[in-house]
Amino acid sequence: MMDTMQGLKRTKYCGEFTAEDIGREAVACGWVQRARDKGMLVFIDLRDRTGIVQLAFDDRTDAELRAKAQTVRSEFVLMAKGEVRRRESVNPDLPTGEVELYVSDLRILAKAQTPPFEITDKTNVKEELRLKYRYLDLRRSEMQHAILMRHKIVKAAHDYYDRNGFLEIETPSLIKSTPEGARDYLVPSRVHPGCFYALPQSPQQYKQLLMLSGYDRYMQIARCFRDEDLRADRQPEFTQIDLEMSFVDEEDVMTVNEGFMAHVFKEVLGVEIPTPFLRMPYDEAMERFGSDKPDTRFGMELCDLSDLLGGCEFKVFKGALEAGGSVRALNVKGAADHLSRKEIDKLVDFVKAYRAKGLAYTRLTADAETSSYEKFLTDAEKEAIRGRLGAEKGDVLLIVADGNNQTVFDSLGALRVELANRLGLIPEGKFNFLWVTDFPLFEYSEEEGRYVAKHHPFTHPAFEDLDKLESDPGACHARAYDMVLNGCEVGGGSIRINTPELQERMFEALGFSEESARAKFGYLIDAFKYGAPPHGGMAYGLDRLVMLMLGKSSIRDVMAFPKVQNASELMTQCPAEVDEKSLRELSIAVTAREEAE
Amino acid sequence: MMDTMQGLKRTKYCGEFTAEDIGREAVACGWVQRARDKGMLVFIDLRDRTGIVQLAFDDRTDAELRAKAQTVRSEFVLMAKGEVRRRESVNPDLPTGEVELYVSDLRILAKAQTPPFEITDKTNVKEELRLKYRYLDLRRSEMQHAILMRHKIVKAAHDYYDRNGFLEIETPSLIKSTPEGARDYLVPSRVHPGCFYALPQSPQQYKQLLMLSGYDRYMQIARCFRDEDLRADRQPEFTQIDLEMSFVDEEDVMTVNEGFMAHVFKEVLGVEIPTPFLRMPYDEAMERFGSDKPDTRFGMELCDLSDLLGGCEFKVFKGALEAGGSVRALNVKGAADHLSRKEIDKLVDFVKAYRAKGLAYTRLTADAETSSYEKFLTDAEKEAIRGRLGAEKGDVLLIVADGNNQTVFDSLGALRVELANRLGLIPEGKFNFLWVTDFPLFEYSEEEGRYVAKHHPFTHPAFEDLDKLESDPGACHARAYDMVLNGCEVGGGSIRINTPELQERMFEALGFSEESARAKFGYLIDAFKYGAPPHGGMAYGLDRLVMLMLGKSSIRDVMAFPKVQNASELMTQCPAEVDEKSLRELSIAVTAREEAE
Repeated sequence: MMDTMQGLKRTKYCGEFTAEDIGREAVACGWVQRARDKGMLVFIDLRDRTGIVQLAFDDRTDAELRAKAQTVRSEFVLMAKGEVRRRESVNPDLPTGEVELYVSDLRILAKAQTPPFEITDKTNVKEELRLKYRYLDLRRSEMQHAILMRHKIVKAAHDYYDRNGFLEIETPSLIKSTPEGARDYLVPSRVHPGCFYALPQSPQQYKQLLMLSGYDRYMQIARCFRDEDLRADRQPEFTQIDLEMSFVDEEDVMTVNEGFMAHVFKEVLGVEIPTPFLRMPYDEAMERFGSDKPDTRFGMELCDLSDLLGGCEFKVFKGALEAGGSVRALNVKGAADHLSRKEIDKLVDFVKAYRAKGLAYTRLTADAETSSYEKFLTDAEKEAIRGRLGAEKGDVLLIVADGNNQTVFDSLGALRVELANRLGLIPEGKFNFLWVTDFPLFEYSEEEGRYVAKHHPFTHPAFEDLDKLESDPGACHARAYDMVLNGCEVGGGSIRINTPELQERMFEALGFSEESARAKFGYLIDAFKYGAPPHGGMAYGLDRLVMLMLGKSSIRDVMAFPKVQNASELMTQCPAEVDEKSLRELSIAVTAREEAE
Repeated sequence: MMDTMQGLKRTKYCGEFTAEDIGREAVACGWVQRARDKGMLVFIDLRDRTGIVQLAFDDRTDAELRAKAQTVRSEFVLMAKGEVRRRESVNPDLPTGEVELYVSDLRILAKAQTPPFEITDKTNVKEELRLKYRYLDLRRSEMQHAILMRHKIVKAAHDYYDRNGFLEIETPSLIKSTPEGARDYLVPSRVHPGCFYALPQSPQQYKQLLMLSGYDRYMQIARCFRDEDLRADRQPEFTQIDLEMSFVDEEDVMTVNEGFMAHVFKEVLGVEIPTPFLRMPYDEAMERFGSDKPDTRFGMELCDLSDLLGGCEFKVFKGALEAGGSVRALNVKGAADHLSRKEIDKLVDFVKAYRAKGLAYTRLTADAETSSYEKFLTDAEKEAIRGRLGAEKGDVLLIVADGNNQTVFDSLGALRVELANRLGLIPEGKFNFLWVTDFPLFEYSEEEGRYVAKHHPFTHPAFEDLDKLESDPGACHARAYDMVLNGCEVGGGSIRINTPELQERMFEALGFSEESARAKFGYLIDAFKYGAPPHGGMAYGLDRLVMLMLGKSSIRDVMAFPKVQNASELMTQCPAEVDEKSLRELSIAVTAREEAE
């Protein structure tokens, strides 16, 4: 049997010991970070979530007690009582390094096998092994810090929104499946054979109903679920800070949320965030940064060359312009030394991933100018390009031409960020916020052969576009806004439609028959007949916000128990097969099984 | 088209208007509670979540504006600008009753159909209709108050536990199914055909792992799921305030949580709750109250008569005692007038629902004593019973005898509460807390032919019972505790096993083979080999806590969007059928369909 804690109570966390405690009795608990047995001297570094304190045993220690201390290994769980005394050799690297606990009572509360990897921040252990033993990985102070900070961020959200009149209201997790949007996770019902619940992709419809019910300001830390093919940094379940407000316009929502960012950054990181944030219309964001989530921490903006090349004979440029597209460029200042001809060739592959057909370039070294379009443009055209881009010796000009403007934007926008990262143009520790506004209301889906909602079908069109909803949907803007931080979308939302008449026009513009609209959103259509206030809101991706605030590169590093890319959890080995009886009770059968690995 | 808010901004909530605002301009928004058209005078009661303010129009109002006001109907959504003025006839029933808004600009933001029921607290509308139109039901001030209070309770929990060093940590909702305990909701995996996630019944295993990872104090407002046959007041999804602490014993957990109750009652209801709470061992609770969640707001305790009836010839009593059971009674003081012979007969049916075979009684009216066992007991025995129970004229003595003590406790325990309710013995507005402690570790399951864990298999046995784990499991107590409020369990928890050796003995006592234990809890068994601290915690049923604090009789009245007894949501009509394509993607097929209604 192990020792028990009986008769002792912790009086201090390990990280809290200071010189002021010298001469006092104390009891500490924790895990063995390191044990050093020097014969008559035994030192144990004891760790808890606050830090490390040294336990000491020496030649005056009772021999049995010292012998017990010598049996201690890494990660054993201990409770130790003793007197705090000044260390012989102070450890300046440790906040508690001036003192040690001179132990008179040692309890071994649990033993530990040797862990599969050392519990230390300097780890290059494979992520898979870390996730399999997540409970050990979570002992590392780096993970503990992330989880502590996440707690503080969530607490700051509760505090801020409460103070601003938001009520936290829970919406259901077992809801009705709607075939619009991403793929739902489904939950078979036992009581209703053949019927299914869905797990919510967001509380969107419920929060709108709460506005209709008069709750005025709603917030929720909401778990959401999407059964998507997981891209690099997506999780099947993730958390939103979800908000909705009544009798508001875009400015009201943005102002409240700028206040939240200022609060949470100040509270958690001690960083002042200036407000209001820059507001940038979608069209401007695309023109200047080739992205609807521009990273404004550095320049290197996109530059439109189309008007300079009206009479150009180079068929790549000419073709793009004739197809209604554009020719745009980046000037990568002073990069000629860093970007060799060969490396530029690799950038061609990079932009091809964004559907660009190629990348034209000019390299202006100290003594020469080499250009991929040298032979195809007139000197005047080349001069005009250099002039427009403010090209100087040492610069590299990178040009994309395409008949589809989106392709030009996507490829140059991504290239801009890629090069800024490679060339170290992004300043550390800077938090650049802005709002991107005036999004298109629709985007045309080639796949579905119709316009689909860019945001969702409840987004309010811009007032000035209301008469174009039927005649020119592609030109309509939405009362939608995204909050962008350092080139990432941390949140987004919109003002919603609040009258059945406008909602009906919206459904029609989306090509829903009255019947299919009813089948999908019947209860919601009914609800809106009983008086819905103007309302709008937004949602933050909490995991991503925490990641950005802590400067992490993956949301897995700010979640206690994440899943990997194939949506499984390595620690518990889930999902897993279940017994036939459970399936029979649910009136379902499995039609295919996973191949054994 | 409806009016828009453009150019106006709300300056005040409806409930906030006071005499201080007289003479000032103001803008209010809300729903029409009532509109009165008296020709040249129009009054509209405008409602939002804070209250009601009167909008006024009169003969000096612009004719077009007054005409517009006359078109307004109940539940229309309005925005109104005007000057605050003193009312001609003050309404003392309304907090804002001294003033009104004399309107100069009226916007009709949305119209409303006549709702299927009036938005008022004096409602006797069927719950089914209320739930079908939940978004309208939620407009009633009674529901708004409940949701507001729930928000405050949750906020108080965040604040209190944060201040006491608890970190809020999110655990996953898509987890591994464990065949122990209640039925899991299952979620088919698309990526892993034939495999399933389960929705958590509680975060039990994850929170224990967090203790093993050194997080020391954890809390979470956790959504939990149980696919049970729904009894009166259960929901398929419900919310727990979930807690866990390291290096603690029972007293530590209880003390922190008494502090929470004192805080939340003070903060939300302004009620002082004295601490510490009474601690009552399980055995005493059964002996005195026939229940492990005794309502201590009134007396009428159970009384054991067994020792008085050792030589008794009455075969009902004799048989019970010989079978190792007992004879116990309640003295319902002064109830002889309320409980006629006929009504006592009905109580026989009541106790039969608790498996009692019958109910013996004595009725002591002013002039007579009638007793169901008159002929079968000696005068001395009858005298002894009266003496033990302190029987006086006017009392009714109710006796249950059974060979199974549990049956005696269950039936008399339930009868005690039933009679207290009927006879009005329960004082209003009283909050009686206590802890029930020292629960049995196991209970014998006739169904499974083995001992099962009363709490769960990770509960730590009492230290003094450790040597009886194999030899006499039925006599072992658990380090478990329930928090009881007014006869309801509001929370419960335990100190957990923290060493693999003891966990193994526990699994053996439960009859799990090593193999089946591994299959069920493999990763957890492994985890505990790496050093788990002594730890324990508890969980509150949040819905029930809110219900009790607000004096409601159903948890559906403190949830925004509850489900009904057959686990469906009437508003959205879920669960529902889904298309075949979705099922194919999940590699499942439906084997039975719900009969159309």
